[in-house]
Amino acid sequence: MNAPDQLDALLTLTREPFPASRKAHIAGSRPDLLVPHREVTLSNGEVVSLYDTSGPYTDPGVEIDVTRGLPGVRNAWIESRGDTEGYTGRVHQVLDDGVKGELRGAIEAERIEALRRAAAALQRAPRRAKSGANVTQMHYARRGIVTPEMEYVALRENGKREWMSEYLTDPAREARLRGNSMGAHIPTIITPEFVRDEVARGRAIIPANINHPEVEPMAIGRNFKVKINANIGNSAVTSSIEEEVEKLVWAIRWGADNVMDLSTGRNIHTTRDWIVRNSPVPIGTVPIYQALEKVGGVAEDLTWEIFRDTLIEQAEQGVDYFTIHAGLRLPFIHLTANRRTGIVSRGGSIMAKWCITHHRESFLYTHFEDICDIMKAYDVSFSLGDGLRPGSGADANDEAQFAELRTLGELTQIAWKHDVQTMIEGPGHVPMHMIQANMDEQLRLCHEAPFYTLGPLTIDIAPGYDHIASAIGAAMIGWMGTAMLCYVTPKEHLGLPDRDDVKQGIIAYKIAAHAADIAKGHPGARARDEALSKARFEFRWTDQFNLGLDPDTARDFHDETLPKDASKVAHFCSMCGPKFCSMKITQDVRDYAAAKGVAEAAALQAGMAEKSAQFKAAGGEFYIPIQSVKQPQA
Amino acid sequence: MNAPDQLDALLTLTREPFPASRKAHIAGSRPDLLVPHREVTLSNGEVVSLYDTSGPYTDPGVEIDVTRGLPGVRNAWIESRGDTEGYTGRVHQVLDDGVKGELRGAIEAERIEALRRAAAALQRAPRRAKSGANVTQMHYARRGIVTPEMEYVALRENGKREWMSEYLTDPAREARLRGNSMGAHIPTIITPEFVRDEVARGRAIIPANINHPEVEPMAIGRNFKVKINANIGNSAVTSSIEEEVEKLVWAIRWGADNVMDLSTGRNIHTTRDWIVRNSPVPIGTVPIYQALEKVGGVAEDLTWEIFRDTLIEQAEQGVDYFTIHAGLRLPFIHLTANRRTGIVSRGGSIMAKWCITHHRESFLYTHFEDICDIMKAYDVSFSLGDGLRPGSGADANDEAQFAELRTLGELTQIAWKHDVQTMIEGPGHVPMHMIQANMDEQLRLCHEAPFYTLGPLTIDIAPGYDHIASAIGAAMIGWMGTAMLCYVTPKEHLGLPDRDDVKQGIIAYKIAAHAADIAKGHPGARARDEALSKARFEFRWTDQFNLGLDPDTARDFHDETLPKDASKVAHFCSMCGPKFCSMKITQDVRDYAAAKGVAEAAALQAGMAEKSAQFKAAGGEFYIPIQSVKQPQA
Repeated sequence: MNAPDQLDALLTLTREPFPASRKAHIAGSRPDLLVPHREVTLSNGEVVSLYDTSGPYTDPGVEIDVTRGLPGVRNAWIESRGDTEGYTGRVHQVLDDGVKGELRGAIEAERIEALRRAAAALQRAPRRAKSGANVTQMHYARRGIVTPEMEYVALRENGKREWMSEYLTDPAREARLRGNSMGAHIPTIITPEFVRDEVARGRAIIPANINHPEVEPMAIGRNFKVKINANIGNSAVTSSIEEEVEKLVWAIRWGADNVMDLSTGRNIHTTRDWIVRNSPVPIGTVPIYQALEKVGGVAEDLTWEIFRDTLIEQAEQGVDYFTIHAGLRLPFIHLTANRRTGIVSRGGSIMAKWCITHHRESFLYTHFEDICDIMKAYDVSFSLGDGLRPGSGADANDEAQFAELRTLGELTQIAWKHDVQTMIEGPGHVPMHMIQANMDEQLRLCHEAPFYTLGPLTIDIAPGYDHIASAIGAAMIGWMGTAMLCYVTPKEHLGLPDRDDVKQGIIAYKIAAHAADIAKGHPGARARDEALSKARFEFRWTDQFNLGLDPDTARDFHDETLPKDASKVAHFCSMCGPKFCSMKITQDVRDYAAAKGVAEAAALQAGMAEKSAQFKAAGGEFYIPIQSVKQPQA
Repeated sequence: MNAPDQLDALLTLTREPFPASRKAHIAGSRPDLLVPHREVTLSNGEVVSLYDTSGPYTDPGVEIDVTRGLPGVRNAWIESRGDTEGYTGRVHQVLDDGVKGELRGAIEAERIEALRRAAAALQRAPRRAKSGANVTQMHYARRGIVTPEMEYVALRENGKREWMSEYLTDPAREARLRGNSMGAHIPTIITPEFVRDEVARGRAIIPANINHPEVEPMAIGRNFKVKINANIGNSAVTSSIEEEVEKLVWAIRWGADNVMDLSTGRNIHTTRDWIVRNSPVPIGTVPIYQALEKVGGVAEDLTWEIFRDTLIEQAEQGVDYFTIHAGLRLPFIHLTANRRTGIVSRGGSIMAKWCITHHRESFLYTHFEDICDIMKAYDVSFSLGDGLRPGSGADANDEAQFAELRTLGELTQIAWKHDVQTMIEGPGHVPMHMIQANMDEQLRLCHEAPFYTLGPLTIDIAPGYDHIASAIGAAMIGWMGTAMLCYVTPKEHLGLPDRDDVKQGIIAYKIAAHAADIAKGHPGARARDEALSKARFEFRWTDQFNLGLDPDTARDFHDETLPKDASKVAHFCSMCGPKFCSMKITQDVRDYAAAKGVAEAAALQAGMAEKSAQFKAAGGEFYIPIQSVKQPQA
């Protein structure tokens, strides 16, 4: 490649597989339908299979060149449908990469030019629906077609379940732990037909632009695993395109199911090329951000024409979903006047300024059906933005928020009229006791279109820890029915997240999503907890680390106290829990009680002298008397 | 002081006050009743008052010498009641400081001897109830007496509310945000009589051993603020007595309302002297740990006599509550045989081993009334331990757990017969959908005695992040009625928490407790969130930091992006929120709409040309077009 030295950074992607893990694939009904999952081999020989968002990056067998992009796994599927056509596409304009800010000297100019040249190699001739065609997954679903994308999703949601039977054997335990679905209906096995029906009903979406064939299809819906989204985005101040691609790779490594590119400023178009071409997960954007750049940051200079042009530009690049704040209508703006924190959505504020300045209804609202026409030509999904979401607990569930939500429900029905896939964005800042109302109203007003919430943050006094304050709300609303949780990092409200912040945010949200899946009773969720708990109880330390959400940190924390490799197999009393022989002993007790037919304490006690003698004679140890490595809980 | 150089470390306690903060006091009905709180002065001149657990350590006006201990704020109260007497006390025995492990050479021996000498200066002649007397707060409460401790608690729970009226003015907002108390009954203003009635009823406890006069009284109960506990404890491997005292100071700085000393091994008695004498918060212990040390770590060698002696030893030192696993009865042990993770409570395992080996009922159960006799002579509160709590989600809410809980309810009634204050420990590991049942059963079976839970952890796959996995469960169960939340640190299951882990655990639990208070509708909880949100909306960065749970981290995170002091007052669009003038503009819109009597969008639009002209003529800016310092959320 001809790029100068500065581009070397591009190639330092994080590519090592997770510990004891290898990429494996579940074969579908056609040779090119291979659904990735991660196999973790435990020290006892068991193999556990986990849902895997990391794409080919964690597969050492795949050669990756970010200047060329990932292979297009969906190319054949899209072409074989015969309802799309390649075309020249929109002509690139200087404004596409922003106008604000000047170049920072010759080296910077050379670097940016190099990035553009490299990005040019990433260009694909765009496709769009043939005249009159509708190429959305919803459109196919409603005509009864099961697409390869739907089959892929079904296989991916199920995962490889065989190993789970080892853990889910006790009928009494299964009955006791049965989840409370809160109205969701998750089948034991997800069939491709079920996926189709959920997409047709509008209760799930498969974000998959026909110009993003690199995507590994996934579903967002209440009756599937709860998903999480991570935001990345450049900034003229701190980050670069190279960093953005690695941020993407880093985010999906830790479990981001979707990534939103919220870049603003310089190189916004070129950054997006890099990200989409190298992303195995759906990419979302907020097109109004770029449109605003094109008018020099002056909100009132925005026009429908500029916005429309931006939608097409991004649809051609392959963006999978657009956040569009079409529910923020002129008559709702005054409802924010008494708020503690006014309007805090950036897109919402841009549109509020436009509406107020012109004293006209939002062009996003008046042109909504025009937008639908673009969406269905590329299968871009709506993420209907909540521009009036509360920015503090004080503003939660107020009339401004719910007026907009009602409008989002109306717009959902219009989008569905066009068979455009649609999800609904939600708050934000909501105290725990007000979360259920958010879910109930969203389900009711938006006809069960998937809900996609930002947290919500349950309190406002935790700057620096808002990933935790919001993970609480996210777990709860995920349980109640939210389909995707947008992460919050520790830097929320304070600054730009760095690499570690992104990871911290993602892990907090994987916890929230998994807690929700467990509570809902997702049939594929609990076995991983059982496997890890069993490893913990049997002092298989390495297995405990490797089954966790972040094996590296778990191992590092353990090694801070006991770095020796020997301690990884020692039966140390880390939880002050018993060595496994305690199971044997208590099992003995139970067998004895069962044999004698005694259930009462007195009877049990009376009969025990015999056991006592046996136990002592065997030199039995209930505990291994080793110094605890961990301060016990009381 | 005569101690050698090694003791210098003792004096490096964290003592700087929080930013813009000063210790202030609310005066009670007697001159020696002064309730501390923290006053934070904002940049706009407002003064906000916050609940303060940090004791005299954050008051630069107080001279502190850890070799002498804190002043005994309760001395006069205890003496004036006339129902206690000083006595010689139990004779110190070599075994009190453990027998395991050898000294590590001469320097170590000298250091330990120095610590003992210094600790000797901390010795107080113990007090106990006069013959036939009962000196518990519950006993006084049931005779209708309002003690100074109760008045102190009432003043402390209310705090200085005057400043809050600034924030809680909008009746519509107050009605909308009204909490859901989930059955709690928190009065708007806590009176000393209310505290008395709650203590008499057993619904709250005031842990306050008569031999811990240094304690600043606090209440644990469903109708008070949700409290948190932090565990500290030495270990022969890694920590020392000096570190333990600083851990205490560090823990209460960040908000620990209670601290449990879970030390094991060497210097266990001496460590406790240091901690209790220097602690303004109640100290809890698990006496069976020390008793086990006295029998060389051999559980089956434990006897009632050794345990009893240990209770008296610790009661004389001033421990405020004892975790006692008296509910783990012999006939329940076999119920754990089929568990995924058996028995994970250390105290529970010790007693299970004892019961199984001897095939006898637990001496904690058979001697429960004897224990009550000791508790009431010193006013030590029960924390009835859940030795059979689940160690994994798989074991949540099983028969072993609930059989023990039923027994704890029976024991509560026995303790109450003796007027001994009692709280109940709870799990552990519980998926979200099973948390409510824990709270319901505890309230029902334990007659509303305060619940004190460890988390619960909502999932098992987050080693390294269990403070987050458990903060979710803690927030929920706190909302539902749990009175105190025992923290979990990021090192849970992996190793000993260090200084930063302790802080991370405490902050996560302050978030959980505050989220619970907000959801319950605690009348003193929400104003701090409103004040911080207002500061955030008005770009008063420093105020935002200083009103947060951790001003240091918030400031550091902000400074990573924009270190200049000027940026602390700049109206930067950190949340992409509007500059405050947006409030004015939307207010204009609302006024206009109200004046014209229009509510409909069409009418509003039609009437707006006039406003538009005014707005443009004024050169009005809705937004300040400054480069965002923070990646916006969509």
